[in-house]
Amino acid sequence: MSIKPVIAIHGGAGTIVRQAMSTEAETRYHAALNEILSAGQNVLADGGSALDAVTEAVRLLEDCPLFNAGHGAVFTAAGTHELDASVMDGATLEAGSVCCVTRVKNPVLAARRVLDASEHVMFTAAGAEAFAQSQGLEFVDPSYFHTDARYQQWLNARGTSGTMLDHDAMTKFAFDNDPIDPRKKLGTVGAVALDAHGHLAAATSTGGITNKQAGRVGDAPLIGAGCYANDATCAVSTTGTGEMFIRMLAAYDVSAQMEYRCVSLEEASNDVVMNKLPRIEGRGGLIAVDAKGNVVLPFNTEGMYRGYARVGDTPVTAIYR
Amino acid sequence: MSIKPVIAIHGGAGTIVRQAMSTEAETRYHAALNEILSAGQNVLADGGSALDAVTEAVRLLEDCPLFNAGHGAVFTAAGTHELDASVMDGATLEAGSVCCVTRVKNPVLAARRVLDASEHVMFTAAGAEAFAQSQGLEFVDPSYFHTDARYQQWLNARGTSGTMLDHDAMTKFAFDNDPIDPRKKLGTVGAVALDAHGHLAAATSTGGITNKQAGRVGDAPLIGAGCYANDATCAVSTTGTGEMFIRMLAAYDVSAQMEYRCVSLEEASNDVVMNKLPRIEGRGGLIAVDAKGNVVLPFNTEGMYRGYARVGDTPVTAIYR
Repeated sequence: MSIKPVIAIHGGAGTIVRQAMSTEAETRYHAALNEILSAGQNVLADGGSALDAVTEAVRLLEDCPLFNAGHGAVFTAAGTHELDASVMDGATLEAGSVCCVTRVKNPVLAARRVLDASEHVMFTAAGAEAFAQSQGLEFVDPSYFHTDARYQQWLNARGTSGTMLDHDAMTKFAFDNDPIDPRKKLGTVGAVALDAHGHLAAATSTGGITNKQAGRVGDAPLIGAGCYANDATCAVSTTGTGEMFIRMLAAYDVSAQMEYRCVSLEEASNDVVMNKLPRIEGRGGLIAVDAKGNVVLPFNTEGMYRGYARVGDTPVTAIYR
Repeated sequence: MSIKPVIAIHGGAGTIVRQAMSTEAETRYHAALNEILSAGQNVLADGGSALDAVTEAVRLLEDCPLFNAGHGAVFTAAGTHELDASVMDGATLEAGSVCCVTRVKNPVLAARRVLDASEHVMFTAAGAEAFAQSQGLEFVDPSYFHTDARYQQWLNARGTSGTMLDHDAMTKFAFDNDPIDPRKKLGTVGAVALDAHGHLAAATSTGGITNKQAGRVGDAPLIGAGCYANDATCAVSTTGTGEMFIRMLAAYDVSAQMEYRCVSLEEASNDVVMNKLPRIEGRGGLIAVDAKGNVVLPFNTEGMYRGYARVGDTPVTAIYR
């Protein structure tokens, strides 16, 4: 039986803002998801690896200002941008990750270079930037990551004691361009894929959470928390309240349940998202694919930007439940 | 049945240097391990929590110049010290971690403050130092971490292309004060404990690997890789070639095998250290304790500084197989 390659992506999860469900805004998100899925599909259709497909999809998600990663990333409490990304190859269990970079245009490309060119798995802060520079990656002025929409969110959040996530009582905010409440959006982007050779891969990238303390690291750059891939089980990319995903090893737990409990991708993913994470008030979701090409996209919030595309088929995209 | 509290510690694993097995050097290590185990025992005997016992034991391991963490940490390629630490509470699954700090005297205390006082799990680099400072932790001049023995190791390593781990052909080196070959020592320290209330905890700390690239993050500060605790299963602290422990989620995998395969602590730990890690050339070991007070200390290298102590009993320490 020949394998039908498939890619799935997500662009963050969160609470739906009912009053903001304008057709126009929704259309914008669907179009972006479709375009990026098509690009990933093309990589796979050309016989490209799952690793290349997820890297390319996350690169495009980083470049798209609608999503909280790369250009369009949220602001920290210091008014800066700190970016994290990771990638894992299910064929070799090799992985690469960077956290807290501020001038690398595409953090996922830096993570990929760590995987390809370094004996290490993870680099942080100035050391991560030095590594990226030594690899000839594109650098940008930090202002490149600025978008007016995120800046407005940050200005609103600054008046509060905590991060956006924890502030439900905010009254003044323009939701016009974001169907999922940006105050409660758990912003990450990610991709998982199965290629024609039967290999799996996953990649995840984020700008963190609005108004976060400098130096906070969430699940996105952590192998096993926000990103995991193993040809023997599955590839997973998560999005949500990062701290709970770290404590639950959310991405790896899906794989561990498949390997040790011998349950399906669907059963393992649902247990993590619907049972284990809620036990510690973990909110969000994940996307995952197994070696048979099964795709799941469970989330326990009201919405998650998501989609998947099998080679030869029309991409499927969705925002709400 | 009343629980008999127990603590176990490790001070790194590696290759034995036969010619360096002087009784004097061995005695020094045994004495340090005994002293630190006694301190942990005292915390537990006084009814203290496992979390307090592992924090105190790792603090003492950091202060001891014999081990690669805190004072006595190895040098990076830049001639600096970058320190990582993590701690996890099995009762709540709460965790705290810092990586790449350079001036916090005891990184494990910073990790503990993240667990106790922050809504986040992990802080890196300057943000981690800012958090530690806001918590009133003791700061030191980076020269505090300098020891002549580590400096000598670094000078020897600098002539090579890679890190100490990868250089087997080095000829000139004084092994006098370290029974485990410091060129091949996989330096981390850690502790796991079970307290009288039936709670488990784990803590891990490291100075990384000699001559490492700036910003490299190993398994020590990563929850699930170098440190994990869950009252339902076990508490684990690892030491070894960090990259492979990250890719295998070594600490969490012990717990996952106990939970999902329903195997014993011993079987799960042995599978991780003797089967799964060697598959990707992962070298090192781990210490672990379960809720019944079983203690295991497996390693796949020639030696691992280690020991355990049950409340009321004489501590047991060992270096070689």
